[in-house]
Amino acid sequence: MQDQLSYTFSALADPTRRAILARLALGETSVTELAEPFEMSMPAVSKHLKVLERAGLISRAREAQWRPCRLDAGPLKEAAGWIEEYRRFWEQTLDRLDKYLREIETARTKSKTNGSGKKSSKTK
Amino acid sequence: MQDQLSYTFSALADPTRRAILARLALGETSVTELAEPFEMSMPAVSKHLKVLERAGLISRAREAQWRPCRLDAGPLKEAAGWIEEYRRFWEQTLDRLDKYLREIETARTKSKTNGSGKKSSKTK
Repeated sequence: MQDQLSYTFSALADPTRRAILARLALGETSVTELAEPFEMSMPAVSKHLKVLERAGLISRAREAQWRPCRLDAGPLKEAAGWIEEYRRFWEQTLDRLDKYLREIETARTKSKTNGSGKKSSKTK
Repeated sequence: MQDQLSYTFSALADPTRRAILARLALGETSVTELAEPFEMSMPAVSKHLKVLERAGLISRAREAQWRPCRLDAGPLKEAAGWIEEYRRFWEQTLDRLDKYLREIETARTKSKTNGSGKKSSKTK
């Protein structure tokens, strides 16, 4: 009864599964080849693949005998869409930081100008 | 020993926790007010808040006595950045679909044109 977004985020909550997706982004490959870089038993890798498959993030070809795995990005798109709703929050944070840095800079410039004698306010 | 991205995705893998973040996107609020819309015991809500806090997605003010919760979007930004790497994959999928639809359309137009007599190939 879990919803698609929860399946997706849950599948992404593991560095090995994210590494598997990163490998599949380079092209489809066999399970054996996929397991190679991980110091992990084949059953352990298979378990991770099952989680990714259930979340719809990967699929396994039926036509070829070696049944290559491939990346399916649909659920990632949905997840990105959800997170995107919060973009204004992190942008606001950056804006606030930017504003703060500008204020410091302005204050520093002002104190320098005052220190070395006032410049004509008519200078553009 | 879990990494930040895994904490973030794990925290997002639950509809109640996502609803809490959506509520906090409207403004900071007390835990009691936050718990209201959920048919859930306070300890259950507190448990969800702890997961979100550990992932750095929310923080609780120390100054006010009612200790309001607020959204911290930093980890969401990081998560969006990770998913964004795969954008070309879902865009490719859409491109392929678009190409396929155009091909169908072209084939249909051609068969119509052929059916109603050939048009001069000189007509621009």
